[in-house]
Amino acid sequence: MRDDINPEDRHAWRMQKKQQIMRERIARADKDQGILLVLTGPGKGKSSSGFGMLARALGHGMKVGVVQFIKGAFSTGEEAFFRHLPNVDYHVMGEGYTWDTQDRDRDVAAARAAWQIARKMLRDDSYQLVLLDELNIALRYDYLDRDTVLDDLQNRPAMQHAVVTGRYAPQELIELADTVTEMKVVKHAFKDQGVRAQKGVEL
Amino acid sequence: MRDDINPEDRHAWRMQKKQQIMRERIARADKDQGILLVLTGPGKGKSSSGFGMLARALGHGMKVGVVQFIKGAFSTGEEAFFRHLPNVDYHVMGEGYTWDTQDRDRDVAAARAAWQIARKMLRDDSYQLVLLDELNIALRYDYLDRDTVLDDLQNRPAMQHAVVTGRYAPQELIELADTVTEMKVVKHAFKDQGVRAQKGVEL
Repeated sequence: MRDDINPEDRHAWRMQKKQQIMRERIARADKDQGILLVLTGPGKGKSSSGFGMLARALGHGMKVGVVQFIKGAFSTGEEAFFRHLPNVDYHVMGEGYTWDTQDRDRDVAAARAAWQIARKMLRDDSYQLVLLDELNIALRYDYLDRDTVLDDLQNRPAMQHAVVTGRYAPQELIELADTVTEMKVVKHAFKDQGVRAQKGVEL
Repeated sequence: MRDDINPEDRHAWRMQKKQQIMRERIARADKDQGILLVLTGPGKGKSSSGFGMLARALGHGMKVGVVQFIKGAFSTGEEAFFRHLPNVDYHVMGEGYTWDTQDRDRDVAAARAAWQIARKMLRDDSYQLVLLDELNIALRYDYLDRDTVLDDLQNRPAMQHAVVTGRYAPQELIELADTVTEMKVVKHAFKDQGVRAQKGVEL
């Protein structure tokens, strides 16, 4: 991020830079490029979609990185499955569902430490896809500085894919992204009726 | 499907039976049950979400089945990744993007053969999750009999999860499902600009 512009101009500056990057990308004949993909909205399927892309990338022999910004209190199926595979660098923030710890300082510290790991991935073109699971929630709670996150995403290697999941994607991230899906709840019958999350589907 | 009711009553009958199944399920104290999940809408992330759930289920040591109702013309990342894993029974319909074959009879035959495989999974409780990828498209094109499909889904083992993906989920499937997410396109910048699908994200 440049320091010689005031906060009000940051947005315009970022969008201008994005336009320039887009023009350069489109000018390339092969039209291969790293995509910034955001999966947001209240519906079920955001994280699982991110993990599906992870599998897809691994199927193509790519090296991938994962940082989970919420989960960790219990071992989820995706963690058990992906964590120890070759070509996977897997990190989980803090020690669990930190929003329940009631200790904001600790949560902020954990989120920032997790971002340092994410940033290293976003500066290393050997990672061909980086999944930032539930990052939107960490942004929503202001556990991370939004501009730092947006800058790091924007400045990542040109061919690196980044996938960001979580409800409440901030508008600036949506603007920066190449592809954005909003997941809408059509129904979630069992949830409404108090049935617990099911292994393999939700966990 | 009962044969002694006319087609007009099928819907009411099905919904009544669903209500009964739901009541029985809710009456159980533990509230664990197989979920029928539908991922539909035009946005990106439907199939990848289904494959993420597959990974999740595998992480819990479950046995899973996959039938892909469209892909197959080329090896996709998810197929390369999942096909040969233990606990995965993976099938791809026909010989490719059959909608391009311009031979409807062949497409119908391929879809029906694929449904026979799916049906076997839906009658075998050793499969703890069955992913029916792009099934909605096969229904949309009337390659499969809708009532047969709905009946087989409804009559599957009580603890088996089924995940159905694809645009244009028929209304009756949405009504039968427990959880339905509609994926909405907020933006798909590169697609609009003619950039080809990227490995690891779309393929």
